[in-house]
Amino acid sequence: MIEVIGLDGDDTLWHSEQLFVDTQLAFRALLAPYVDLDDHALDARLVEVERRNLPSFGYGVKAFTLSLVETAIEVTDGRIPSGQLQAVLDLGKVLLDHPVQLLDGVAEAVDALTDRYRVMVVTKGDLLHQESKVARSGLDDLFWRVAIVSEKDEATYRRLLLREHVDPATFVMVGNSVRSDVLPVLAIGGQAVHVPYHVTWALEHADHDPDVHDFPVLDSMAELPACIAAMDI
Amino acid sequence: MIEVIGLDGDDTLWHSEQLFVDTQLAFRALLAPYVDLDDHALDARLVEVERRNLPSFGYGVKAFTLSLVETAIEVTDGRIPSGQLQAVLDLGKVLLDHPVQLLDGVAEAVDALTDRYRVMVVTKGDLLHQESKVARSGLDDLFWRVAIVSEKDEATYRRLLLREHVDPATFVMVGNSVRSDVLPVLAIGGQAVHVPYHVTWALEHADHDPDVHDFPVLDSMAELPACIAAMDI
Repeated sequence: MIEVIGLDGDDTLWHSEQLFVDTQLAFRALLAPYVDLDDHALDARLVEVERRNLPSFGYGVKAFTLSLVETAIEVTDGRIPSGQLQAVLDLGKVLLDHPVQLLDGVAEAVDALTDRYRVMVVTKGDLLHQESKVARSGLDDLFWRVAIVSEKDEATYRRLLLREHVDPATFVMVGNSVRSDVLPVLAIGGQAVHVPYHVTWALEHADHDPDVHDFPVLDSMAELPACIAAMDI
Repeated sequence: MIEVIGLDGDDTLWHSEQLFVDTQLAFRALLAPYVDLDDHALDARLVEVERRNLPSFGYGVKAFTLSLVETAIEVTDGRIPSGQLQAVLDLGKVLLDHPVQLLDGVAEAVDALTDRYRVMVVTKGDLLHQESKVARSGLDDLFWRVAIVSEKDEATYRRLLLREHVDPATFVMVGNSVRSDVLPVLAIGGQAVHVPYHVTWALEHADHDPDVHDFPVLDSMAELPACIAAMDI
């Protein structure tokens, strides 16, 4: 018996990673006059800085923007003029203020699911930015709860479900990240549905053994209501 | 009948604003070779940038650090070398990783209050940083709930108390900010206790009319248990 559906936000309900990819294109263009690094090498340096800053900064656009500035200074050995760094800061502001674009089928799927289940957003990133995206999604009134968390691991899901008096056996988490939305929920006795986005952030990559971890994988959120109905027997 | 005590985090449970003041001293020293502004003028420019960025960035050290970098570029007209901006970024990292220093009397006050009341931290700032400070405070196990919010206004308190099934008439909020901890709670029918910190961030200043808003003001958290006992009649 399924009672509560958890939905990830970024790249599950609305576009996100594609905006970061576009931002990195603009970032490379800003750095091009000051450093001779191919795209792959520059991306690798940025990921290295993000990984290093993750324990202190956590997730979200503000952390990303700080890491962009740091990467720009580092890879140019301080040669980039500080005026250009304002342009890097502005890339972050554009991301924060970007309109929310729902993925195909999301509005209909959420609407259909709320007829039978309590639907809770479980998302990580900047608190204010995630709240703002939920508000701007137009789906706010349909959600039973919105949980913005600093990490999506087993301990977080366990604590969250306990606080909301939800038995993990009645919980299904839906999201684009096997690492954050699927594996930790399976580990605490819940179920999960994977809806891949066409691009995945380097720090979200996860390996799993399909013989051990078996979960539905959908092409689109439009398929979610039928998938949940088939699981809820 | 009081049932739930809300405690602010920064500058109520642990030192915070003094660290920001110290950081601004170091910031001025970093900028001194590139700009001829007196301390007051530089602080005013920083507050202006913080105020401008607040709607997108929200509260917390990451927002502050981004605003420091932006201010440094702006007030030097881009003359500050980008290598020096790394030193500005590092000021933010030092703040994020700074040890948690409880204010005098906090540990004993929280311990005493939890004998009779449910105690909930209500704090704003970066999600991960605030969680980390709660964990490092050593008081984590005493708290019934930890609520990290993006703004502390009437709507936030109303939503939070509703979610936790707390009647505002049974709730007392305790904190150093009249604007964030006292006035909005009084406005929704709760009670509040003001425990001023020796320095207040410019964007937390609030005016209030003592004839309209009457609330206890304490010298120290050590006085809190007796104050609450006197209110709980």
